[in-house]
Amino acid sequence: MSMLEQIHSPADLQGLSVQQLQALCGEIRQRIITTVSHTGGHLASNLGTVELTVALRYVFPSVQDEIVWDVGHQAYTHKILTGRNAALPSMRSRGGLSGFPNRHESPWDPFTVGHASTSISAALGIAQAKLLKGEPGAVIAVIGDGALTGGLAYEGLNNAGRFPKNFIVILNDNSMSISRNVGGIARYLAQMRTKPSYRKAKTDIESLLSHAPLVGAPLSKLVKNTKTAIRSILYNSTLFEDMGFFYYGPFDGHDLPTLLEVLRNARTIDHPVLLHVVTEKGRGYTYAEQNPGAFHGVSQFDIATGEPAHKGGETFSGMFGDCLCRFAEQDPGICAISAAMKTGTGLQKFSRAFPRRFFDTGIAEEHAVTFAGGLASHGMRPVFAVYSTFLQRGYDQIIHDTALQGVKVVFAVDRAGIVGEDGETHQGVFDAAFFNAIPGVTVLSPCYFEELYQDLRRALYELPGVVAVRYPRGGQPFCPAQFQPSGADWALYGEAGAPVLLITYGRLFAQACRAQERLLHEGVRAEILKLNQIKPLPAAALDAAQNRQAVFFFEEGMRCGGVGEHFAASLLERGFHGKFFLQAIDRFVPHETVAQALADLKLDSSAMVQIIKTEWGK
Amino acid sequence: MSMLEQIHSPADLQGLSVQQLQALCGEIRQRIITTVSHTGGHLASNLGTVELTVALRYVFPSVQDEIVWDVGHQAYTHKILTGRNAALPSMRSRGGLSGFPNRHESPWDPFTVGHASTSISAALGIAQAKLLKGEPGAVIAVIGDGALTGGLAYEGLNNAGRFPKNFIVILNDNSMSISRNVGGIARYLAQMRTKPSYRKAKTDIESLLSHAPLVGAPLSKLVKNTKTAIRSILYNSTLFEDMGFFYYGPFDGHDLPTLLEVLRNARTIDHPVLLHVVTEKGRGYTYAEQNPGAFHGVSQFDIATGEPAHKGGETFSGMFGDCLCRFAEQDPGICAISAAMKTGTGLQKFSRAFPRRFFDTGIAEEHAVTFAGGLASHGMRPVFAVYSTFLQRGYDQIIHDTALQGVKVVFAVDRAGIVGEDGETHQGVFDAAFFNAIPGVTVLSPCYFEELYQDLRRALYELPGVVAVRYPRGGQPFCPAQFQPSGADWALYGEAGAPVLLITYGRLFAQACRAQERLLHEGVRAEILKLNQIKPLPAAALDAAQNRQAVFFFEEGMRCGGVGEHFAASLLERGFHGKFFLQAIDRFVPHETVAQALADLKLDSSAMVQIIKTEWGK
Repeated sequence: MSMLEQIHSPADLQGLSVQQLQALCGEIRQRIITTVSHTGGHLASNLGTVELTVALRYVFPSVQDEIVWDVGHQAYTHKILTGRNAALPSMRSRGGLSGFPNRHESPWDPFTVGHASTSISAALGIAQAKLLKGEPGAVIAVIGDGALTGGLAYEGLNNAGRFPKNFIVILNDNSMSISRNVGGIARYLAQMRTKPSYRKAKTDIESLLSHAPLVGAPLSKLVKNTKTAIRSILYNSTLFEDMGFFYYGPFDGHDLPTLLEVLRNARTIDHPVLLHVVTEKGRGYTYAEQNPGAFHGVSQFDIATGEPAHKGGETFSGMFGDCLCRFAEQDPGICAISAAMKTGTGLQKFSRAFPRRFFDTGIAEEHAVTFAGGLASHGMRPVFAVYSTFLQRGYDQIIHDTALQGVKVVFAVDRAGIVGEDGETHQGVFDAAFFNAIPGVTVLSPCYFEELYQDLRRALYELPGVVAVRYPRGGQPFCPAQFQPSGADWALYGEAGAPVLLITYGRLFAQACRAQERLLHEGVRAEILKLNQIKPLPAAALDAAQNRQAVFFFEEGMRCGGVGEHFAASLLERGFHGKFFLQAIDRFVPHETVAQALADLKLDSSAMVQIIKTEWGK
Repeated sequence: MSMLEQIHSPADLQGLSVQQLQALCGEIRQRIITTVSHTGGHLASNLGTVELTVALRYVFPSVQDEIVWDVGHQAYTHKILTGRNAALPSMRSRGGLSGFPNRHESPWDPFTVGHASTSISAALGIAQAKLLKGEPGAVIAVIGDGALTGGLAYEGLNNAGRFPKNFIVILNDNSMSISRNVGGIARYLAQMRTKPSYRKAKTDIESLLSHAPLVGAPLSKLVKNTKTAIRSILYNSTLFEDMGFFYYGPFDGHDLPTLLEVLRNARTIDHPVLLHVVTEKGRGYTYAEQNPGAFHGVSQFDIATGEPAHKGGETFSGMFGDCLCRFAEQDPGICAISAAMKTGTGLQKFSRAFPRRFFDTGIAEEHAVTFAGGLASHGMRPVFAVYSTFLQRGYDQIIHDTALQGVKVVFAVDRAGIVGEDGETHQGVFDAAFFNAIPGVTVLSPCYFEELYQDLRRALYELPGVVAVRYPRGGQPFCPAQFQPSGADWALYGEAGAPVLLITYGRLFAQACRAQERLLHEGVRAEILKLNQIKPLPAAALDAAQNRQAVFFFEEGMRCGGVGEHFAASLLERGFHGKFFLQAIDRFVPHETVAQALADLKLDSSAMVQIIKTEWGK
């Protein structure tokens, strides 16, 4: 690691030869593989961008040369080169580096990222600010071909194309988003990639046209007319040129000398430039090269075998996929939709079993929701499986294109609640609140696999209109022997009619059960009201809370606008006069384990006990 | 009106000659002008699509030929031809026709619309459903060039390009969205429009290539190589072809014979087709042709003069624009952003006075928010002026690209609350709830112009982070002589310490004042707590409510997750033991006047009096 140890900022790259830079890339690759094998994180995308990042930081070495990495799951080399190599093993753990660029972590990170397709718009804002303030430095957005399927990226391109100065977008094309890229854009880029002589051909055509007089006389008028047309087509012949960019590429994203030259040239152009760079996901680690999808986001793994260090058990995602297949076998109306998250949401099996009814939209949550509304308006039963945090992108479409239509659309909201190591950009803590305000929507929040099955069944066949079934990342939590998961709207557990009532929903029920047990040992008699249907609130559940001396509500979601406040307001309107205490989330939640986050948010069993002992004594 | 009276469905068009259809178009134009002069509504866009709609319904006469109109503000001819001509004068009024296609209004409206850029995605869903179910009929999306600037439209195109059957997108290109279109796409379409021989040129080039041997021998190898390249470019030379569509056009959208032929041909193609049709906004009404922006959405007007029937007074939008100019004169950091709503949001003056600091993004709310985040991250003070209902599109970006960044972005949320005649797709009833859940955001809700000014000042210079200032459509409401608008977080009005407290925010304060007066006459003593800052709730305002016997909260926004529930939960946690009653919105609100809607929602002064008398007696 001798060379890498001497790199503390991009300035330290400047003395190095191309050969030394290439050797450095090798060291960085090893550093990333070793680190991620311990910390987990994004592997394949980071191995693909080593040379690109080294070249970028060689040509753009100032902290005022601002690089916005789209999504940010490919920015480990960037972190390594900007003073964060020593801290890399702390990545994704409490108090350590974030797994994504974060503007509160380093002045080298101009914008916090995590969701896809934001980079061009954010970078354009930065470039405009610099222009208005007369500040120096380049602004560069690096976006993958996957993120390019998102509408926000297109809006950004459309607006950036008329920026009056240098503005660089690097299309990091690895021919897949998280799994395989889809749609017209993907096919289009594939065509471009297979024509490395594409740009050269243009020059040749120009040359041909300038020799047009050599063409035989009978065709001369035709030639004259068509020359103009051909020229117009030549200069507007890529999607990016249509948007106002100068397009160059495709270039080999692992060829350092080429990258250095291209970036040096791009820097001198007083106009928006799009550089098309082709990279290989997982480059330099055989297992990741062979199966980049599996090595997109990984847990700890064994470098020698590529196998995960810990075998995962059954997950809610997997159970969801199995359940949906069971329903779909009987019901030809069921369609499954994914926004580039087939594997993550457990839909592989469905996609193989029912290919005509499976739709991967690319990273395009807005389209996915509106498309689902269209399917449902004509009698199909669409299920959109999506991470909670990414469904935020479809908020308007949920209102306008599903709920308002009065149609049956099911949202299978995965990664609802705290997600852990991915941190603040990825927490699924808003969905309960944002669904809350939408008329006619039912929201179910199972805690166990059996409940997930029952909730999906009810969502598809019993409940009217739009239904969201939300479930956490990972597997099902502890279940006390005396509790039988059933899929009922709500359930009571513990001492019947106890003066203290704990209310919660989703997986926090397991924490509440442990808290209830410990409280009993300490002489506090408590019962638990477990909500499965969190919108609309079951009237009988409100009845069950009405006459308690104290109600403690614990919510793994935002406090303001959440279920707890809705419950509280309903209780108050019904004349509840006991003590009420609501513990929920009121801030962005950084990266740490789920257990750590729940403890910090005072939502684990220990915190529950502590709060109830403190507040109930009052 | 003789011919029009005989058209009750598209079937009735079938016997007519082209000349008769053209005459019919004239009648329809007059019908639209006359009707809209009385009902208000969208004029210019509807006058532009008369021939297109007649041609569409002539070629696609079945109710199973489903046409999704993007936004839907151009669908009056569609309504006229599908059995709704007689009801047209009822449009936009309570119980009458909606101003937009609405699937609950007619089987001829396959999807409810109102927001831009949804048509391709919704139509694709419908087409997939038909394909899976084996149902007949064409599916057609009609989208304007303005709506094409929205990312959702791009996501839709990208997904629709691989549909395996006939699927027709009609680009209704009138070279402006609501005012002038902007960005790369607009420039691109302008180029295409100026080349009506564009498609012909392609054929000519093909012909040239097939004669290539005529080219002199020295060039033969070059020709051979470049022929392949040219062909590839030819067949992939429009943005839409890049996305997988067959592109045809541009065609004159007022030339009926051409339209009929083009549509008949398009129907036969077993592949996604994009037809580029150029129309003129306001066609056939001189004032609207000359100033289509002013005749986009209109109130009642005098046909002879083109002047509005009623002079409007000062509006919140206008006041906002004036205030922002005053701040911007002193502060070079202020930038204003609009998403194709410069006029509607009152930013014309700003755009003229500070052109370098004014940004019109097109219909691209997601980009607008993220771009604002970028500007703010580098020291500018961006203000995004946007209608409440359209800001729903930027929900994820508000969270991820402004609040999470910890930057200063101001959202000037226009048309907050009930908007009236535009109806359920346009009500601004979700913003208070969706901002509620986002950490670190402050939300201000002025009732009067002076408060708007003070709130903007505080948003820009006193309050940290993201601030939303939300205000209603139209002008300021009644203000009692004894009340002095100040911009304070909260204020009390009425009998100090009265047992009954009315709480409200925004313009409902005026209703509360009238209610308080009437209650006094009926012997009920009430005080009003007027909130100006609705998030976070001022602790002192909670104190002021704490010891009342009864609290009645009236909210012109969604109940679930709204301010009232947040207030209630806070009161309950603080040990409030009085009566609490919350009246807010819990359903989609259809088109009717604002006054009618407030009465129906039990949010006007009469309803307030009624509720308090009924509930307080209990």
